[in-house]
Amino acid sequence: MYIHAVSHYLPTEVVSNEHFTKLNGLSSDWIIERTGIEERRKAAPDENTNTMTVEVVRRLQEKTDLSTVDLIVGATYTPYDTIVSLAHEAQHELGIADIPVVSVSTACSSLLNAIEVVEGYFALNKASRALVIVSEHNTAYNNDEDTVSGHLWGDGAAAMLITKERQADGDFTILGLLTGGAAHTPKGTTGVMMKPNEGGVSMPHGRDVFINACQYMPKASLQILERCGLTLEDVDYVLPHQANLRISRNVMNTLGLPEEKLISNIQKLGNTGCAGCGIALSEQWDIFQRGQRIVITVFGGGYSFGAMVIEKS
Amino acid sequence: MYIHAVSHYLPTEVVSNEHFTKLNGLSSDWIIERTGIEERRKAAPDENTNTMTVEVVRRLQEKTDLSTVDLIVGATYTPYDTIVSLAHEAQHELGIADIPVVSVSTACSSLLNAIEVVEGYFALNKASRALVIVSEHNTAYNNDEDTVSGHLWGDGAAAMLITKERQADGDFTILGLLTGGAAHTPKGTTGVMMKPNEGGVSMPHGRDVFINACQYMPKASLQILERCGLTLEDVDYVLPHQANLRISRNVMNTLGLPEEKLISNIQKLGNTGCAGCGIALSEQWDIFQRGQRIVITVFGGGYSFGAMVIEKS
Repeated sequence: MYIHAVSHYLPTEVVSNEHFTKLNGLSSDWIIERTGIEERRKAAPDENTNTMTVEVVRRLQEKTDLSTVDLIVGATYTPYDTIVSLAHEAQHELGIADIPVVSVSTACSSLLNAIEVVEGYFALNKASRALVIVSEHNTAYNNDEDTVSGHLWGDGAAAMLITKERQADGDFTILGLLTGGAAHTPKGTTGVMMKPNEGGVSMPHGRDVFINACQYMPKASLQILERCGLTLEDVDYVLPHQANLRISRNVMNTLGLPEEKLISNIQKLGNTGCAGCGIALSEQWDIFQRGQRIVITVFGGGYSFGAMVIEKS
Repeated sequence: MYIHAVSHYLPTEVVSNEHFTKLNGLSSDWIIERTGIEERRKAAPDENTNTMTVEVVRRLQEKTDLSTVDLIVGATYTPYDTIVSLAHEAQHELGIADIPVVSVSTACSSLLNAIEVVEGYFALNKASRALVIVSEHNTAYNNDEDTVSGHLWGDGAAAMLITKERQADGDFTILGLLTGGAAHTPKGTTGVMMKPNEGGVSMPHGRDVFINACQYMPKASLQILERCGLTLEDVDYVLPHQANLRISRNVMNTLGLPEEKLISNIQKLGNTGCAGCGIALSEQWDIFQRGQRIVITVFGGGYSFGAMVIEKS
């Protein structure tokens, strides 16, 4: 299984930390110290998870041919439309008839959940060229005045073409992928929530989310490396879910890897949910050298987690 | 792949057609003539997709052991919480650590999308005992005063244990399963929509949904039968998505099958979204005889569709 091409989209409006200083009295230094976030993007009034989907699909079409896509898997927890999901919107945009189309909603881990769904379709020989889209419109469900988590969130989207067979030099080979859920833990279902009819995003147990993220991302990373017959010495970059720069640094510390190997976009984008790692992979696509390996590891609300090892060909 | 056991839950409050007569002037006869719906259930104020999930999981535990479940796939388009999805809630209830947990949101076709995701995990040898939950809280997003579609919707949930190996006499063997999307059609992304931040459910192109449902469900049913080496003569029952009794009868007519072979619960439950077929399978579980085959076929918003053939062992 290969990642052939990736695209991303970011809304143009930048929201600075000063916005939250004015609103809630949180200083920019305090926000940066606690989260690493300097600014984040906010979708325009006429933008949403579906319009951002169309945008990343068009941008991906500029990089590769999508006319023979035979599976679409979308992911979001901030849906514009839960019936006409972003995967349906992508199918409508591409105009490809009768292929399987499914959207997943598994919080911030959904990029890897979506790719694992693709892996299943490939194993069944029900598809061989999959379009995966991750799109988050956090600001549609966020309360800026929430002093606990209002300043964390940003909007953005990414799309990738995943193929069963290698398409070209430069494709990333997916060496291994696992996902899991830790909702069995005491605060797994209350740490961070997003209730459309009850005020949107809230994070009453941020510390518990923090602790579990710092445990599960290194653990999943080591598990998937072991399954691939690799060690930490074989890892060139780690791309963790972009929730908090302190969590990312904690993950690197636990793994004993230097910060130069950390890929991070939270400083400029905030927490873009399940889109964060997809956006980062697209932003950094050109820096990766043949043979380099990246561990992408995620953790999110509902306490879903996952890890994937990819290698540049 | 086998369906070993199914459970369902229906809220206790019954909403009669007279409620809509008082509200919108629609007579009960008119509603019944147009949709077949006589009444529907409405979740209590403290109920939602996640509480109904816990309820169907407990009811399924009364029928079979869920302690070794190694995959949970949830489905809904009327989520209580898009971060702590109903699949996470089920994991929390069961207390099983670190298994893959994913929720799908592909409108009314999601039961079959969820089972196809399970099929993929089984093919990958990443799971062998999957809990699938479908739960819809339509009344949380419905506008009763909408004279076009306000009277259609009901609440309910179902859960099933799907296993890679046959567990016991009476299991249903899944002979074949396909899903697809028809969002490429002109009104595929506008026929019926559910926008949490823009008024909830709406159905501006009900006639187009009707026409496509009547085309895609028979077409998918015939395709999956052919792939299984079966014909319509091998079919004992058809269980279509419970959207409208006129659609169900139209599907039977197109297939040339008598109405005695139609399984239907829309009369008493309304359109319970992706939960409808799961609830019906649970309600009717005891009527099926060894060797009998059921075609379950679905069509929903975003114009997703699917068909599955199962045989009682």
